[in-house]
Amino acid sequence: MNISIIRYILGSVLKFEAALMLLPCLVAVIYRESSGFSFVITILLCLAFGFLLSHRRPSSTVFYMKEGFLSVSLSWILLSIFGALPFLISGEIPAVEDALFEAVSGFTTTGSSILTDVEALTHCILFWRSFTHWIGGMGILVFILAVLPMAGGHRMYLMKAESPGPSVEKLVPRVRETAMILYGIYTAMTLLQIILLVVGKMPVFDAFCISFGAAGTGGFGIKNDSMAGYAPHLQVIVTVFMILFGVNFNIYYLILCRKFRQAFRSEELKAYLGIIGASILIMTWNIRSFFPTLGEALRHAAFQVGSIITTTGYATTDFDLWPQLSKTLLLILMFTGACAGSTGGGIKVSRLLIMAKTVKKELFSFAHPRGIKKIKMDGHPVAHETVRAVNIFLIAYMLITAFSVLLISLDDYSFTTNFSAVAATLNNIGPGLDQVGPVENFHLFSPFSKCVLIFDMLAGRLELFPLLILFAPSTWRRN
Amino acid sequence: MNISIIRYILGSVLKFEAALMLLPCLVAVIYRESSGFSFVITILLCLAFGFLLSHRRPSSTVFYMKEGFLSVSLSWILLSIFGALPFLISGEIPAVEDALFEAVSGFTTTGSSILTDVEALTHCILFWRSFTHWIGGMGILVFILAVLPMAGGHRMYLMKAESPGPSVEKLVPRVRETAMILYGIYTAMTLLQIILLVVGKMPVFDAFCISFGAAGTGGFGIKNDSMAGYAPHLQVIVTVFMILFGVNFNIYYLILCRKFRQAFRSEELKAYLGIIGASILIMTWNIRSFFPTLGEALRHAAFQVGSIITTTGYATTDFDLWPQLSKTLLLILMFTGACAGSTGGGIKVSRLLIMAKTVKKELFSFAHPRGIKKIKMDGHPVAHETVRAVNIFLIAYMLITAFSVLLISLDDYSFTTNFSAVAATLNNIGPGLDQVGPVENFHLFSPFSKCVLIFDMLAGRLELFPLLILFAPSTWRRN
Repeated sequence: MNISIIRYILGSVLKFEAALMLLPCLVAVIYRESSGFSFVITILLCLAFGFLLSHRRPSSTVFYMKEGFLSVSLSWILLSIFGALPFLISGEIPAVEDALFEAVSGFTTTGSSILTDVEALTHCILFWRSFTHWIGGMGILVFILAVLPMAGGHRMYLMKAESPGPSVEKLVPRVRETAMILYGIYTAMTLLQIILLVVGKMPVFDAFCISFGAAGTGGFGIKNDSMAGYAPHLQVIVTVFMILFGVNFNIYYLILCRKFRQAFRSEELKAYLGIIGASILIMTWNIRSFFPTLGEALRHAAFQVGSIITTTGYATTDFDLWPQLSKTLLLILMFTGACAGSTGGGIKVSRLLIMAKTVKKELFSFAHPRGIKKIKMDGHPVAHETVRAVNIFLIAYMLITAFSVLLISLDDYSFTTNFSAVAATLNNIGPGLDQVGPVENFHLFSPFSKCVLIFDMLAGRLELFPLLILFAPSTWRRN
Repeated sequence: MNISIIRYILGSVLKFEAALMLLPCLVAVIYRESSGFSFVITILLCLAFGFLLSHRRPSSTVFYMKEGFLSVSLSWILLSIFGALPFLISGEIPAVEDALFEAVSGFTTTGSSILTDVEALTHCILFWRSFTHWIGGMGILVFILAVLPMAGGHRMYLMKAESPGPSVEKLVPRVRETAMILYGIYTAMTLLQIILLVVGKMPVFDAFCISFGAAGTGGFGIKNDSMAGYAPHLQVIVTVFMILFGVNFNIYYLILCRKFRQAFRSEELKAYLGIIGASILIMTWNIRSFFPTLGEALRHAAFQVGSIITTTGYATTDFDLWPQLSKTLLLILMFTGACAGSTGGGIKVSRLLIMAKTVKKELFSFAHPRGIKKIKMDGHPVAHETVRAVNIFLIAYMLITAFSVLLISLDDYSFTTNFSAVAATLNNIGPGLDQVGPVENFHLFSPFSKCVLIFDMLAGRLELFPLLILFAPSTWRRN
């Protein structure tokens, strides 16, 4: 194993984190908040450790899947640990496990919180919480790939480990340019949302934080009632942007290249929009008696469906009070997740499409044992390797879900609480149901359960295997 | 498609059902119950339809997977419809959907009931309920294979469709003899249990019914409190037999052939016993404060673990009152299920073993991309086809679970109720949690939800695909 390159990458990540923390510092200066010093201290720590790890160039640039996976998972762990320091140092989140939970929840774009009163936080801390969503949404290593001229090495492995979806496509032959294009689209869409929200009369600070949360499909609110207090037209803008950020970014690139036919032929996009449309209709009908007009029911249904399927997790109302059908539908949408290559979490629509096609093919083959049928997506046959990887992903997903629910059941909360807490963290959603519902939070869990959920958030964001190989003995065995 | 052979098999099934109904008739004579006439009427109907369907020999004995799957699924549907008639005709279960639910629950060895007071039923009806478990446990078509000299045809397809597990092994080269050996072991073990229970001072009628339920891993009780009223030593006997009936019957055959080493080398057996042991220990510790002595806690924990993992579903106490850890563990055991080739339902231990090994192999291959590692069971490499089938099985399982929970959530009961109701029916367990807990029953659901759960029971018993192909358009398309 090439440890020197992993060390070098980890050092770079810390230096970048230091740079990114300049923004909350700026916020602290604007609002004259003393919590800003916690960022200064953290920046110095990040720089110190960063230079320590990366001052020596790696002795070899040999770089395989294993190094890629380890770099990514260790980067995210380090990023979260240092990202939690401002919460701790400022004293705004005093417990270690809570600060780490909040930081991991931020970077993994989960948005589950252990805070009972977010409005008591200072602006710079609130900004940092939301900004971690934005960083985590597209990925820190994709960011580094975009700006750092890294000599040699197989960057594709880094991108593969961090990008969501069953298979990674490079938009252009060079990984670096692909990463730059992705971040360009991401930044432009975020800015557009901020402008629209500000034009819609949302305070500028709120517009930034809400847009970061929507862009990264994170969902940390800066109000105790999440999005419920904002005007309906602002909620509608956020609904639209959440759904847009759940789309595969390749499609935006195709649109930019004016390849409209290719963009709109995407089966995943059609399925994604189809699921959203059907879910909104069912839910609107199901909750119609909860609101004075059908239009209002539609607005809330659309917001919640968009928020949950994209794994953002904002809420405009306490959907835990809704009928069981709507709640169950939301739970299923939690697992469905957004499109591959978006900033959203979950199993991903394309994986589910491949799974559905696998079952359909199986049924066909029973009736026609000699017939040959290939699984196709967008007209192209899906590689056998991809189908296999999707299957294994599902197995690992189910096993992690079952074990996590079992482990946190030690705290003796209801099954709905435990199951939805795991669903909400593993799929990087945010709120669950019952005692972790949208007007509740995760502070009730024991430190042990919080650790389990921290694991789930990281496993969900990195799509299981980069994190799981940390625990496989074969990874650490020599030769 | 060879419709004539499917017709012929369906006819034979009905004739056999008529023969099997002679036993409850005998019970009615012993107890002088007028409900016995409902069996006489049903027998005549079975015979009439049976001869109608099978008086003409099939024009061709060409028989493939498709015919095998269709014969099995249609047989089970027909078996259940005619099996429900005595409940309806006797008036002891007046509603059509309830009678069908009870019959399907019986044959599929689920043991979920819509009855609020089973003690109000007559002896012959109680006997028939429990006897359907025994018939369904090993399978009606395996039975027919064992006794009916069917000319030609590929009987293996029938066996494959009805026998549980990822792959079917023939004990001896001839399918008919394999089926006879299986039924021989099954009958002998059932008789042994009846004798032990009678020696232990259980009433003879109870001993028969309870043994049928344990042998088929069904779980219909003949008392309103299931097994709670019986003496502790009788509960212990039932615990042991439930666990024994969850073992792959091939192992008993190996033991009969004195191949002990081969028998006890089985990885599935070791994992099955390991899971049972670990679960009993955890649960005993978790419920220790619920009972006066640790021994009593152990007895109840062992009974419930044995009852749930083997998918029997008897209860000695209301485990819905237990701590969340134990309840979650029971839910997970519901999905785990028993061994392949046993009478139990669920995903099956061997499938889970293959899944776990698949994930382990994947983790290994990330670290050693050029290393070659084969998935092995009991020292032999597992066929690629089996691994693939296991993966697809899991996908279909998860999709059916999610859709079923969503559909029955229309009734607006709690998520725990809905999720555990689907878990209990799809895995052929019986009781669930919350409003379908061990002291509750399934009568609360709407007729629509009952139909969904009937589908789940059949899908679970036939391991999904034989039932699913009924709904695949490609099955019915010509050519």
